This record gives sequence, C-alpha cells and structure tokens, in this order.
Amino acid sequence: MNAISRVFNFGAGPAALPLPVLEEMQRDLLALPGVGISILEISHRSPTFESILAQAEADMRALSGIPANYRVLFLQGGASLQFSMVPMNLLAPGATADYLDSGSWAAKAIDEARKVGTVHVAGSTKSEKYSRIPAQSELSLTPGAAYVHMTSNNTIEGTEWNRLPDVGDVPLVSDTSSDMFSRPLDVGRHALIYSGAQKNLGPAGLTIVIVRDDLLERSRAKASVLPTMLNYAVHADNGSLYNTPPVAAVYVLGLVMKWLATQGGLVGIEKANQRKAAKLYAEIDRTGFYRGTARPDSRSLMNVTFRLPSEDLEATFAKESASAGLDGLKGHRAVGGMRASIYNAFPEVGVDALVSFMREFERRNG
Amino acid sequence: MNAISRVFNFGAGPAALPLPVLEEMQRDLLALPGVGISILEISHRSPTFESILAQAEADMRALSGIPANYRVLFLQGGASLQFSMVPMNLLAPGATADYLDSGSWAAKAIDEARKVGTVHVAGSTKSEKYSRIPAQSELSLTPGAAYVHMTSNNTIEGTEWNRLPDVGDVPLVSDTSSDMFSRPLDVGRHALIYSGAQKNLGPAGLTIVIVRDDLLERSRAKASVLPTMLNYAVHADNGSLYNTPPVAAVYVLGLVMKWLATQGGLVGIEKANQRKAAKLYAEIDRTGFYRGTARPDSRSLMNVTFRLPSEDLEATFAKESASAGLDGLKGHRAVGGMRASIYNAFPEVGVDALVSFMREFERRNG
Repeated sequence: MNAISRVFNFGAGPAALPLPVLEEMQRDLLALPGVGISILEISHRSPTFESILAQAEADMRALSGIPANYRVLFLQGGASLQFSMVPMNLLAPGATADYLDSGSWAAKAIDEARKVGTVHVAGSTKSEKYSRIPAQSELSLTPGAAYVHMTSNNTIEGTEWNRLPDVGDVPLVSDTSSDMFSRPLDVGRHALIYSGAQKNLGPAGLTIVIVRDDLLERSRAKASVLPTMLNYAVHADNGSLYNTPPVAAVYVLGLVMKWLATQGGLVGIEKANQRKAAKLYAEIDRTGFYRGTARPDSRSLMNVTFRLPSEDLEATFAKESASAGLDGLKGHRAVGGMRASIYNAFPEVGVDALVSFMREFERRNG
Repeated sequence: MNAISRVFNFGAGPAALPLPVLEEMQRDLLALPGVGISILEISHRSPTFESILAQAEADMRALSGIPANYRVLFLQGGASLQFSMVPMNLLAPGATADYLDSGSWAAKAIDEARKVGTVHVAGSTKSEKYSRIPAQSELSLTPGAAYVHMTSNNTIEGTEWNRLPDVGDVPLVSDTSSDMFSRPLDVGRHALIYSGAQKNLGPAGLTIVIVRDDLLERSRAKASVLPTMLNYAVHADNGSLYNTPPVAAVYVLGLVMKWLATQGGLVGIEKANQRKAAKLYAEIDRTGFYRGTARPDSRSLMNVTFRLPSEDLEATFAKESASAGLDGLKGHRAVGGMRASIYNAFPEVGVDALVSFMREFERRNG
C-alpha cells in the first residue's frame, strides 16, 4: 500500500473524516495562508483563531438552528468528563436527577452522577441487554427533577432514540456523542446537549456542549465550590477561551461543518445516513445468516450491530474483512459480535463494499 | 505571502513547532503509511495508536530519565484542570498543601486548591510583582504537608526557578507547562510533574502528567467520590486509554520527542535555549533603552519580558515587529510590555532577527 491509500474505516470513534477536510488541512498544515503560522502553533488569542472559532460556532448554529438563548462551548475531556460536569453543574443538594438507562454509556453517566447527588433511574432496558430504547409508557419520571439525562445513540448496542422522550418542563440533557448532526436536531427541546467530537464532528480531543442560558445560573450558584475548569458558566462567559482550547481540533470541526453544508445540511446527511443504514440492515435481514442485535424499531443509523452463527465465524469475519480493506468491524469487547459504524463521513461506497463482502462471506460460510 | 511562508512565532503558547514535525505530519495526513487511516481518524484502541502512544512515552522516559516508579499520563484540560486535579487527588481532609506563589499562574493554582482544602502559601513574591523567584530562606514550609506546589517557569512575568526548592521529604508537585524538557529535568526529585503540551511538547489539547506510583494510593482512597475522569489512578491503570485521548496531539508530541533527540536531548536543547536567551538579554541590557522586568538571577530562558521607555513606544514596537514577520511579541494583557517566548522549537535565526529589529528600533526611537 502506498502512503495515500485509504481503507474503509468502520471504527466506532475516532472515525472517518471527510476526505476534502483532510486535504484542506494537509494543504495548509505548515502555515495558514496569509498568516504564516500552522494551525498546530497558532495562539488561541490570535484574531485568526478567534475568527475560526466564531465561524465554527456560526456554522453549527446555521446547520441546526440553535436558538439565540443557547451557548455553544468548545471543551475538552470527552463525554466521560461531561458525565461528571452535568451533575456537578446542574444537580443541587436535595434535588433528584432522572436518568434513562438505555445502554452501556448511559450506565456510566449514571455511575458518575451518583457520586454527585441523588439519581433516579427513570427507565431501563438493561435486563434486555439494552437491545431496545425504553418506551415513553415505561418511563417513571420524577416531578420537578433537576433534569432528565438521556443518551441519544447507544454506540455499543446499536440502538438510537427515534423520537425524543416527553419530559414535560424538566430540562432534557442529552449525550449525543455518537449521532450529533447526523440528522436534524431540535435543540430547543433540549436544555443541554453534549458530544465528544470524534464520531461525526471532528477529531478526538474536542467536546461540544450546547447549553440553554438559564442553566448557567445553576453553575454560577456553585462557583465557589466548583472547579473553575468544570464550570459551564466560566466557559460561556469567556467564549470558550478561559484556557487554551484544542485549537487544531476546533479548526477541523469548522471544516467538517463546511463540508456538512455541502451535503445538504442535516436533512441531506440524514437521507444519506438512512440510505447507508438501510442497505446494511437489509443485508442482515436477508436470510438469517446474520442476526441484528437491536430490536428493529430501535435500530441505530450510526452503529449497525450484528452477530454471525458462531463466535468462530465472527473471528473469521473480522479477520477477512480487515484484510479486504474493511477496517474496525469487530464489535465492542463488552458485547462481542460485529459493529459497522457508519457516521456522517463514512462513504456509501464503503457500505456497498461491506454488503458485497457479507454476501460473499455468507456464500462461502453459510 | 504564499501559503507556505512562515513567520517567526514568539507566541507564549500555543507556540512554534519544529518544521520537520509539521512536514512529517503533513506528508502522512491523509493516511498513515501502511495503515490507510489518517491520524485524525484512527481508533485509540488500534495497535497503530497503541504503538504511537507507547513510543511517545518511551521517548519521554529516555529523554529525561524518568524512573520506573513514575507513570506518564496523557490527559486533557491543560494546566488549568490540573490546578484542581492535584488537590482533588492529593489533598486529604485535615491536611495542608504548601504553595509557592511565584507568579500569576501559581496564584491561579492556589485559588483552585483553596476550593478543595487547606492551603498555606509558603513563599510569595507577589508584593514585588512576581519579578523574582522566592529564595529558599524565605520559604515557610509546613512540616508534614500533603505536598508543595511550585510553578517552574512563570510565563507572564518571565521568571524561572534555576534550582529546585528543598522541600525535604514532602512530595514536590511542579507545574512545568512552560519549560518542561527545555533543560534536564530531575524527575526523581519531584512527586508529580504536569504540563500543558502547547509550549515545548506539542500542540494544544494535550496535558502530560508524570506521577510517582505511591501518590496514586491517595487517588485510590478517594475513588468513591472523585469523578472518574479526574482520578490519576484510573488513567494510570488504563494506560491513558480510560477514554478517548487527543490522538493527533499525542502523535505530534511523539514526533517532537524524536526531534528533541536529534537536538542532543535535554542537554543539547538547554545549550541552545541558553544561547538564544543570552542574546536577547544582552540586547536588553546593552543601553538601558530596553528594560528587563525580571530580576537577573530569576530570568527565564523561555519567556523574555521587557519594557520600552513608554507604552506608546511599546505599541509601536508591537505593530512594527509584527509587520516585520516577528509575531506575538506583545506582553500578556495583565502586565503589558513585551514578551519574546523562545521555546525549544523557536529557531535561533528568529532570535537574531529580533535582536536586529530591536537594535534598529532603538536607533530610530532611542
């Protein structure tokens, strides 16, 4: 393989980026045009970077219609740090936070919140191995809860919320790490949205938080005890420049937002994502050789999880697919099986290649 | 200016990177050779990245002789998050932490530690505008303190510890964000060292922590209350892969470590840094037109701070130097004046260019 041969990257995250984004970064890597400094070197307080940051935010706002009373924060630490920051900022002593336990990452969020305050699990499909999203009728929401926390897409189990739960007037907090901007996002129905960038938005090392203004008051009320770096209001008040942000990652996210606009925005990308996922699920359902692990009404457009007739065959499938240039199809170590992660930037020709491979693999092993 | 013209970047951080590092990243940006996936896309759990991470750590260990009983952690959040993580992990209820208040960033560390526990300021030069490093004889150390915290280089004030304070058996914690690996580092005399990468080590978005094994027991004792992402022991036990690290930043740091080895390691780079700084301080001291702000015995090799006869002349100097391709010489907004940050990767020809500019500027304005 020569240096610029690229494989199909089905990894669950970090994940494939649009080739035009990589090409633009490559072109300007030694020095941003007209600036003479690399994006890897430039001061976060330079007019150049301030403009990159502002443009990235403006493009995010335009793509998903983020209302004016929401702030967009560019942070570090991934969803895992948000698992703590959310309750540390939003859960006051004596209050209860509701959590919807729809998958392994939701469960991790619950574990962290329990260190901070009172948590009520208001719905769980754990006993069914998280193979489906909880139904509205199953939720036992706490009246006057501090917030309701959900995980919009469950990367490990391959399930996704197809509509937002109705939580009344309680602030809805959503971990959208694995499906943000893969489809239209009704920001106004949320109070806070967070997402590690490394699946649909950019490279690893950047975390996006979209937070409604009024929630920042809770952070301000805790300012004397909350670590400054974990205080949403501090980052909002400083335009994400309280400390040095991950400059290059913000730049790449900005390029990805421009690329998303060329794909027809969130409506356009949703159509592409539906088409890609439909091809894979159709192949999974075709004969019974492959078996989807998520209940059909809960299937994710981002992470397509499936099993083969035996673990031996799964190991063979993983090995042979990798050799065929289909990388990262092994399922999460906690659940086994196979997983095809097909985020925004994953090309449809790669899905077609996988479908062909699956067909041929079944022919030889079915 | 064409796209690959580069200016001299005197920025205080993010800061100049070695050109060969940028060139190597550029060459392989679309796909790592033999892998077919960009460093911006690759899974942190891939053998490729595990090898990049392990090699970066091995090279750091070789460069500075890190003893076997120290762990090297690759984290996020910068020194600002370490200001909280250090006391959250190391300061038990009822114990006291000593802090050496040698500059604006040291003071910020103190503010954060006070949110966590009892802090004793064991030495301060605040009343002298932090123009010098506290002397050993001035320190009022607490017997049996949980740790002593110092800031090895004070970026804003342009001062640097030229020898480590003697703190007896108390664990010494040092924020080396602005001078790590700019000179030999006696890791064994520290208990914990932390550093944002964006000055001497790599791009923004990566934080290095070097911690002695026995301190991790303090983190383990607090595991039930400490946010998992803020627990040093968790990151140590997971080889910095508890969650997704800033993959590309780790890769760049690895390239910088390789480059450092080609510069004669830490001894070689120290000589170069001494030579660069000596040229600037000699020019500052030459006539009295320029005035160094740090006391000569406390002068930093990294951040050379100086004033001009008037703020008007300083504004002119900032403007004209930028036009001449000498970028980022304006001092920190908190103190004014000028600051030339000349970290490891800043080329000596850039220092020569600044000296010439200073000479000529004085001739025209002196």
